Amino acid sequence: MNRLLTEIAKYQKQPAYRREAGVFVTEGPKMVWEAPPDKVRTVVVTDRFRREKEGIEERFPAARILTVSEEELGRISDTKTPQGVLAVVERYSYGFDDVFCEKNGVYVLLDSVQDPGNVGTIFRSAEAAGAAGIFLNRSSAEVYGPKVVRSTMGAIFRLPFLIADSLEETVEELKKRSVKVFAAHLQGSVPYDEADYSGPTAFLVGNESKGLGEEITRRSDERVRIPMLGKTESLNVAMATTILLYEALRQRKV
Amino acid sequence: MNRLLTEIAKYQKQPAYRREAGVFVTEGPKMVWEAPPDKVRTVVVTDRFRREKEGIEERFPAARILTVSEEELGRISDTKTPQGVLAVVERYSYGFDDVFCEKNGVYVLLDSVQDPGNVGTIFRSAEAAGAAGIFLNRSSAEVYGPKVVRSTMGAIFRLPFLIADSLEETVEELKKRSVKVFAAHLQGSVPYDEADYSGPTAFLVGNESKGLGEEITRRSDERVRIPMLGKTESLNVAMATTILLYEALRQRKV
Repeated sequence: MNRLLTEIAKYQKQPAYRREAGVFVTEGPKMVWEAPPDKVRTVVVTDRFRREKEGIEERFPAARILTVSEEELGRISDTKTPQGVLAVVERYSYGFDDVFCEKNGVYVLLDSVQDPGNVGTIFRSAEAAGAAGIFLNRSSAEVYGPKVVRSTMGAIFRLPFLIADSLEETVEELKKRSVKVFAAHLQGSVPYDEADYSGPTAFLVGNESKGLGEEITRRSDERVRIPMLGKTESLNVAMATTILLYEALRQRKV
Repeated sequence: MNRLLTEIAKYQKQPAYRREAGVFVTEGPKMVWEAPPDKVRTVVVTDRFRREKEGIEERFPAARILTVSEEELGRISDTKTPQGVLAVVERYSYGFDDVFCEKNGVYVLLDSVQDPGNVGTIFRSAEAAGAAGIFLNRSSAEVYGPKVVRSTMGAIFRLPFLIADSLEETVEELKKRSVKVFAAHLQGSVPYDEADYSGPTAFLVGNESKGLGEEITRRSDERVRIPMLGKTESLNVAMATTILLYEALRQRKV
């Protein structure tokens, strides 16, 4: 296999390898076309895809474009049914102030959200609901992993995010900037739709099975509870986050 | 391998095989303990699990209990890290009126929702938001598939559902019973939070990439739209459904 393809296969499978190279991989025409052209280093396409979809060179003038067989793409794809194209994209390097980009914005804080599909879907919902940025700790799923990238449906290219060494410190930083931090908590004292999200707002959500840690919950300003009927013990974390984000959007509507 | 284990392995992998047997498989202590004891035919546990967790016989007096090695459980488990126990459970056989069980209830209609995780998560959110039942068509993910079952987090044992031959006819049946059918639609004319869900309500949601079919959309009473900011083209269907269900719950709160 071509050396470049071997390298891409390693980006797909080895988090450390893609981190050292400062890149990530995105697949499928929709996602590749949403990638910022100046960040795209390499585009790999099948012969057939190249014949059918025009304008790849024009769209990515600075990228190396590599044409391969269906079989070769299959070998470096993370999905069972590759869609003819993937791209190697340079990583983002947002600082705190890039993520905290709106004084009156809505932010999401992920404390050890470990399922890649959940993290990706939260990005997708966050963009849709108009959130300004996302903070995650290191025990959350790796944002640049193939499944997270795919589940963002492109939001990863647009929503700034920061992987914080200490999410507790992020909470404190946000509070200093007058952001009110709401912890989504099963034992929350306030029903989520009775809290006021009209000011600068951050939603803090936790791990799929353990929920939020005590320490970080204590640092939040308010614990909000999403009501649950039936015998449900909890909501999926991406669902809970989406409910909160859309309630904030609803309250902020002019 | 024991004949019974071979059979369970086939239930896991072959939809037709488990359908003919009228059963499905559920895994992990949490899910197995939520299964209705009179429907549980077989419980398979590892030696270790049986030593650590007491009361299996008392919980499932009518079930056959089979103790196996970790390795044997691994071979019939659908997950990478089996949790020591799984059960073979008899299927439900709900009729229309079992699902349409509350005159003023909230219902969910799934038109070709194909991702098992989405279908399962919708069950989970629907139970939490107090929905009365779910209708799906045959091109939606198979409810009794291992991933759907797992994603319901137990809601499959409690929320009645019906796989309809024609979801169009289900829409008509519901309308006859004074249920107002809201289609979640990108081109909806009414913002979702301005529609009135206080009466009998059904939310109709569609396929992950194609959305709702034209024919079925035309039969709905109203098309509601969930606003999206940023460049998002759509929300994940489970997120969209959850937003609608919680808005209904919010409006119905006493």
